[in-house]
Amino acid sequence: MKLSTGYVRASGYAHKVRRVLFALVRKEVQPKEIIRASAELNQRIFEEFQKLGVSKDDVVRITVEFDITDGSIVWDYGSLKIEVYRKSEEEKLAKAMEEVEEREKELDEKIRAIEEVALNLKKLTDELIERIEELKQEHTSLKLREEE
Amino acid sequence: MKLSTGYVRASGYAHKVRRVLFALVRKEVQPKEIIRASAELNQRIFEEFQKLGVSKDDVVRITVEFDITDGSIVWDYGSLKIEVYRKSEEEKLAKAMEEVEEREKELDEKIRAIEEVALNLKKLTDELIERIEELKQEHTSLKLREEE
Amino acid sequence: MKLSTGYVRASGYAHKVRRVLFALVRKEVQPKEIIRASAELNQRIFEEFQKLGVSKDDVVRITVEFDITDGSIVWDYGSLKIEVYRKSEEEKLAKAMEEVEEREKELDEKIRAIEEVALNLKKLTDELIERIEELKQEHTSLKLREEE
Amino acid sequence: MKLSTGYVRASGYAHKVRRVLFALVRKEVQPKEIIRASAELNQRIFEEFQKLGVSKDDVVRITVEFDITDGSIVWDYGSLKIEVYRKSEEEKLAKAMEEVEEREKELDEKIRAIEEVALNLKKLTDELIERIEELKQEHTSLKLREEE
Repeated sequence: MKLSTGYVRASGYAHKVRRVLFALVRKEVQPKEIIRASAELNQRIFEEFQKLGVSKDDVVRITVEFDITDGSIVWDYGSLKIEVYRKSEEEKLAKAMEEVEEREKELDEKIRAIEEVALNLKKLTDELIERIEELKQEHTSLKLREEE
Repeated sequence: MKLSTGYVRASGYAHKVRRVLFALVRKEVQPKEIIRASAELNQRIFEEFQKLGVSKDDVVRITVEFDITDGSIVWDYGSLKIEVYRKSEEEKLAKAMEEVEEREKELDEKIRAIEEVALNLKKLTDELIERIEELKQEHTSLKLREEE
Repeated sequence: MKLSTGYVRASGYAHKVRRVLFALVRKEVQPKEIIRASAELNQRIFEEFQKLGVSKDDVVRITVEFDITDGSIVWDYGSLKIEVYRKSEEEKLAKAMEEVEEREKELDEKIRAIEEVALNLKKLTDELIERIEELKQEHTSLKLREEE
Repeated sequence: MKLSTGYVRASGYAHKVRRVLFALVRKEVQPKEIIRASAELNQRIFEEFQKLGVSKDDVVRITVEFDITDGSIVWDYGSLKIEVYRKSEEEKLAKAMEEVEEREKELDEKIRAIEEVALNLKKLTDELIERIEELKQEHTSLKLREEE
């Protein structure tokens, strides 16, 4: 299989790698392994960035092939390809990608807030079920949780 | 400690014993043990009922002492006291307790329906959190569940 | 139609009248009218209690006929029948009804707590939907609430 | 005030205008008016696009000034500025914006699914509260909704 980041600001390559990998293999690979494999690849890309003198404002595009073996992701580093577009040469592209990054931060913030509400909902729902169980124990003849 | 059922229709003694026991010791004893101990006592009461020729329409009042030892309930059967009020002699009491039992059945039905809604709420909340996690994985830079 | 309270402690007759009426006519009559009609009947019963010198520990049983006319409940006061069982004469019945009342207070408390959790759930769900709408407004091309 | 779309694929300008406007004025202007004003501006931009021969694959950047008067948005069309970057000349920028659009469609899909779950949660919560109210009416002495 092949992972391709598309155009992305160098500053955001690591998250992009992970997101794309999740979208590609979520059905076949466990989250933990996707996180591990992303981290491994990102470390390697980071080293390449240093050799290439990539700055965070540059735009990059990365492709690499990989296999899934026994639920693990194995990168074919020989196939790793990193295109770099310097901000000085591709000004509009760099600016556009900067804007995208800015929007993503706002999106993160909104989704984080939604997640918080959802986790509070979960807590409340658990409390509700607990209180109903107590009501059943002391005031009904209904089957209790421990009897099922 | 002492368990007292109060007046109850003979047909409903077993549930009453359990409810009262839950109300008495819920903070000190695990639900499983409360259920077990109720069943044990109820079996003994049932045998006494047979000796006494108690019919389901009679009204009874049961008291018994017990200790809690290492989280277990130990009944003091020597202290078991069963009062029986025959329907033929205490007609109004028997009728009143029958009405109470009827109301409790309706209450059970309503609480069972509420519990069902609550369990569906739990399922939906879990699905919500799952979908938000997926959104985070593919579209954000937020910390994932597996990273915490 | 006929309302019958069954045996009930005099202290709790008013709530019992209302509950029984709700159970009888909830499908045909609006809650507001059920509440109003109960209050009207209860006022009349209260006056009868005073004439009869009923004390709160006595047990009573009340029946009365009524019609539903254009969604309103019309009591047939001519059919009102109040049986009174003095505590001094029906000791066991009085004690049993006192126990029932005690249990109902505990039930009230538990249901009140469940309702509070449910109302908090509603608030949180509304907040969730609000936040999702905001997310849609600023980050998606999805149809907004105002466009539907 | 000034609205600026940043770089955006011509095909997606209308949604971008609306999102940016929501982010800018959500606190001062009603959603309905934001939707109306976006539609008005987008119609005007559409006409300009036709004059300029903009194709959906080109990238554009639009800025325009506006005032808020009595809760309404008034566009200063004299200040409307549309920059067009032809796909043929800015190939990488065009491709990058196409990728962004693709990702946004996936995001839309995930958020739409989350919203659906949230709306089902709302329905269930309403049902829960309804059932608790019914329980209160027929089995408790608690204050009813209509009495508050």
